[in-house]
Amino acid sequence: MAFGWIDEQAEARRRAGLVRTLRPRPAESALLDLASNDYLGLAHHPEVTEGAVRAARTWGGGSTGSRLVTGTTELHTELERELAAFCGFEAALVFSSGYAANLAAVTTLGPHGSLIVSDAGNHASLIDGCRLARGERQVVGHADPEAVRKALATHQGPAIAVSDTVFSVDGDRAPLAGLAEACREHGAGLVVDDAHGLGVLGDGGRGAPYAAGLSGAEDVVVTATLSKSLGSQGGVVLGPARVIDHLVNAARTFIFDTGLAPAAAGAALAALRLLVREPERAARARAVAADLHARLTAAGLEAVRPDAAVVSVRAPSPEQAVRWAADCRTAGLAVGCFRPPSVPDGISRLRLTARADLSGAEIERAVRVIGETRP
Amino acid sequence: MAFGWIDEQAEARRRAGLVRTLRPRPAESALLDLASNDYLGLAHHPEVTEGAVRAARTWGGGSTGSRLVTGTTELHTELERELAAFCGFEAALVFSSGYAANLAAVTTLGPHGSLIVSDAGNHASLIDGCRLARGERQVVGHADPEAVRKALATHQGPAIAVSDTVFSVDGDRAPLAGLAEACREHGAGLVVDDAHGLGVLGDGGRGAPYAAGLSGAEDVVVTATLSKSLGSQGGVVLGPARVIDHLVNAARTFIFDTGLAPAAAGAALAALRLLVREPERAARARAVAADLHARLTAAGLEAVRPDAAVVSVRAPSPEQAVRWAADCRTAGLAVGCFRPPSVPDGISRLRLTARADLSGAEIERAVRVIGETRP
Ligand SMILES: Cc1ncc(COP(=O)(O)O)c(C=O)c1O
Ligand SMILES: Cc1ncc(COP(=O)(O)O)c(C=O)c1O
Repeated sequence: MAFGWIDEQAEARRRAGLVRTLRPRPAESALLDLASNDYLGLAHHPEVTEGAVRAARTWGGGSTGSRLVTGTTELHTELERELAAFCGFEAALVFSSGYAANLAAVTTLGPHGSLIVSDAGNHASLIDGCRLARGERQVVGHADPEAVRKALATHQGPAIAVSDTVFSVDGDRAPLAGLAEACREHGAGLVVDDAHGLGVLGDGGRGAPYAAGLSGAEDVVVTATLSKSLGSQGGVVLGPARVIDHLVNAARTFIFDTGLAPAAAGAALAALRLLVREPERAARARAVAADLHARLTAAGLEAVRPDAAVVSVRAPSPEQAVRWAADCRTAGLAVGCFRPPSVPDGISRLRLTARADLSGAEIERAVRVIGETRP
Repeated sequence: MAFGWIDEQAEARRRAGLVRTLRPRPAESALLDLASNDYLGLAHHPEVTEGAVRAARTWGGGSTGSRLVTGTTELHTELERELAAFCGFEAALVFSSGYAANLAAVTTLGPHGSLIVSDAGNHASLIDGCRLARGERQVVGHADPEAVRKALATHQGPAIAVSDTVFSVDGDRAPLAGLAEACREHGAGLVVDDAHGLGVLGDGGRGAPYAAGLSGAEDVVVTATLSKSLGSQGGVVLGPARVIDHLVNAARTFIFDTGLAPAAAGAALAALRLLVREPERAARARAVAADLHARLTAAGLEAVRPDAAVVSVRAPSPEQAVRWAADCRTAGLAVGCFRPPSVPDGISRLRLTARADLSGAEIERAVRVIGETRP
């Protein structure tokens, strides 16, 4: 039978305790949420949802076509202009997701004959970008500028180094200054994914590249998602105008994909404007993360010091991680649970996100529950 | 300089007259739109935009996480249930785009050791799916079940054939019955992308697989987009529950992507319900396409007989296609323009979409403008 082989894989997953199931959530819930990526607590902010509402009513339910045909509205252009200005880049291009933005950046900037040097801890979308790109890929050790330097030295011709700015599993930060230096020594471009940095790091949430003094550099390209700090959906590539023009002409996930829905563009734009007006939200997310980490450590838990708003807590085994997360949920706390194959190092963890709008009491309650349910 | 090589490519594009530029559109326009993929004219329908509005207010601007963490709301589940029921499949899974849905279906159903037989005219997202998949790929001639049969005969082990149901460039239909037969002879699965069939073909717009009697078959998987007939954004995979479970567990563009924004899910669900209530919209889109084709042909233009709602008109050269489309625009008519490298056969064309809500007078006006501006 055509798809019979699937049953064996399903059975193997069941035996290994690695079955994933969907858990639809209701609109209102008493759960304390430390699982979402809504770092600034903006997804439900009335200005953000009304941004979506206005856009849907003005521009329709969908963008109706590829960005190159009917899918670019003046709203998309406005969002691109304001994202570029905020992050300090010459130009920006919006995609239907951060995943699509990453595929676009890596495939178009890693052409045939080029070298793509990729951090071993990179996000799945960057990895898929490397696999789709025509360039040769070299995977190097995690957060290691010296390894990037060595890899670049082996190659003549166009080259890029590709890295997350904040790694999604442990929440640790990439050594951006060192990476940029290694790239510049070899005339290579630096492509970084600021999905977990935008809205959290840098002055007023301008992102990790901004904090590292790399904004607007002619050899730096930044990707990000509109689905985390900006509480919406979509992705963006920021960089020199020549790079953005190149993407418009060559990126398959731009050319052959329907433009981002107006409601998502409107929500992201409203969130961005809110962040410009209330820059303290970014610092607050970082402070919550630091507080969370300090209290978890004080409670004797093995938490990784957060560089942004992700706090990761190690669990002894995949099974125990799953049980731990489930016990937290029973006690009223939603936390993320990362385990193989989603973790590059095989270590399972709880993943907590430090939302800017968590109160001191909520942080305390979260730490108490995590401590009480530990395996 | 890091991205210096881009300038040469840009110069080559300029010389070849193949530069693509974005043309942001205003909210209100006097242009007659035959360029969008809004086949049923639902993107601006008040029920659809209010579906987006309600969802944004109830569920927030974004889904806040991966579908496996916080990104599955009850709204997503409702949409999946109703899409599956409408198209006649056991289960459905919603993605952030049709592109992501195609990457998911092909990569998870074309694993290591399998064979993927792919039509030469397939959409970019299916092609990228083939390139990301671990299986071996064989590209076969366009719309040729016999070629699929021969390719499948060369392989032992899991295999799939992959095809658009309606090809996006010429609007021609795949020989679904023949493909299914070829697959069944070899115990292979059939994976078809119904992006341009859903809402247009089959009883009440249930799609091309439904029309071909393939809905609900245990060896057939259908992908589609929510961004064309349903006037929103997002993608879906429809198939047997075992296949959908497999995707939940294995599809990277599902696991590592933020869930579809609530507003997009809400708009698509509202459009689907409208289509269930007003099934004649699908037949109307087909009738408009037939009318458009008849009138274009009567005017001496080389139009391809439409199998769905896409009508393609051949142009003598890429430059003339671009000028033709521009002249149409000057005369108040928006049409699509496909040219290399977006056309597999190198033939440039105008691409017209037959919206269900076009009036007879609008169709007449469109044909007059196209005739008067022909190169
Ligand atoms: C580091 C990183 N990059 C990219 C993405 C993909 O962004 P999106 O969800 O908008 O597709 C994610 C998560 O979703 C991520 O964590
Ligand atoms: C045949 C086909 N498949 C898939 C897609 C991608 O769908 P989406 O735009 O929702 O990503 C498109 C067009 O956009 C298409 O024409």
